[in-house]
Amino acid sequence: MLKGFNGWALEGFPLVKAGDDIGGMIVETCENNGLELEDGDIIVIAQKVVSKAEQRVVTLSGVVPSEEARELARSTGKSPRFIGLVLNETRKVLKASKDLLLVEDRRGLVCINAGIDKSNVEDRGRYVLLPEDPDLSADRCRRRIGELTDKNVGIIVSDTYSRPFRRGQVNFAIGTAGVKLFKDYRGKRDLFGRVLKVKNVAVVDELAAAAELLMGQADESMPVVVFKKLGHLLESNGNHNIAELFISEEEDLFRGVL
Amino acid sequence: MLKGFNGWALEGFPLVKAGDDIGGMIVETCENNGLELEDGDIIVIAQKVVSKAEQRVVTLSGVVPSEEARELARSTGKSPRFIGLVLNETRKVLKASKDLLLVEDRRGLVCINAGIDKSNVEDRGRYVLLPEDPDLSADRCRRRIGELTDKNVGIIVSDTYSRPFRRGQVNFAIGTAGVKLFKDYRGKRDLFGRVLKVKNVAVVDELAAAAELLMGQADESMPVVVFKKLGHLLESNGNHNIAELFISEEEDLFRGVL
Repeated sequence: MLKGFNGWALEGFPLVKAGDDIGGMIVETCENNGLELEDGDIIVIAQKVVSKAEQRVVTLSGVVPSEEARELARSTGKSPRFIGLVLNETRKVLKASKDLLLVEDRRGLVCINAGIDKSNVEDRGRYVLLPEDPDLSADRCRRRIGELTDKNVGIIVSDTYSRPFRRGQVNFAIGTAGVKLFKDYRGKRDLFGRVLKVKNVAVVDELAAAAELLMGQADESMPVVVFKKLGHLLESNGNHNIAELFISEEEDLFRGVL
Repeated sequence: MLKGFNGWALEGFPLVKAGDDIGGMIVETCENNGLELEDGDIIVIAQKVVSKAEQRVVTLSGVVPSEEARELARSTGKSPRFIGLVLNETRKVLKASKDLLLVEDRRGLVCINAGIDKSNVEDRGRYVLLPEDPDLSADRCRRRIGELTDKNVGIIVSDTYSRPFRRGQVNFAIGTAGVKLFKDYRGKRDLFGRVLKVKNVAVVDELAAAAELLMGQADESMPVVVFKKLGHLLESNGNHNIAELFISEEEDLFRGVL
């Protein structure tokens, strides 16, 4: 018996507006696509549609840049208001240089510009912030799909970020509900009986990365991917907190490297 | 029409010995599994089986540790011979601290212990080095499968590594043949006609990550995963050099962060 999984991108997912019910839209688009949702399905949703539904789209006009924002604007060459917007979402600035503002955001996520972006937004001059609490967004969607279909699915909210050492971006998990963060092999044995000491694989990030292969980043408009036959990666006893994935500076093996 | 892909793990892949023909073994195991190889298939192979076939398994007894190795052994608490082994594979030591030796290896790959590992090796006291040239390993396998089946497939050699900022490991590409490294969106337009400036997605790493979901790290023995319906990610005009994925310290946005 071959062991495998399938990933499906939902065609024709509607453009999302403030207040939209993402869970309901997923159920409807699955129906339109003839794709039946089943127990154990894992659904990866691009952050941008979640943010739009949650009204996390803002203009710069309301932003009053602080002194810190003005200073960082000078060193990065970006607009003071844009930097002000990023700082509102930021716990700690990790690096500010020409063209780059890398931060640890309020949620503990390390990313450029606190994940704020303006691609795939209708109105020029508007910026999309990350969801206030991506775990909660995922959980809301999971419950809504449960209500509508009576199926137990897992949800991942994902976004695409640069990473150190390697060129290009990959998709990462930024919020989850009902999905295992890790496949923990520590204490398990290898093929020849040796105990594994370190292996703790971040499957939630691997699922996010896999979903991106179908999503696309430009005008493909495929913000939702459904994985089938990976039900063993569902978390049976409740939700996980994505913050468990974020490593503190003190614990980070790579501290002091870059 | 739903757009999707499938990933299949090959059951019953034999234990690999020095000199084994990995390409031939993949073709045979696919046949045994009733899985037909087709043009456009992308095959991800765990580094360990490639290294074993290429006789990259060594003992520490032949290693004569240099003065540098002895010094690093003191600061990391590891054996001088093991450190000597790592240094043989290393271009530059990035960090040496208690229990950790992070290096840029001879191939430009940033990883702990130059990717040297002893899990899933038959004999105690033996260590597996990365393939000498993982691109060449991938290319050899691709040609062999082409010879045997007349199909044009892509190959990725992958390994599982820790990464900064996030807990746990994920699978990365360390060598490829015939697969696109990136889906480059720079200059393309988003849903609303805005030109994308930065997006250049490292699909080869996303494919490696996706494969890990089926491979496992312990005694599952699923070192080969075949992806179907992702043929648009094949590189039509020849092979890529994985080194194009490695970013120099000077260019790394994250420089100075950790």
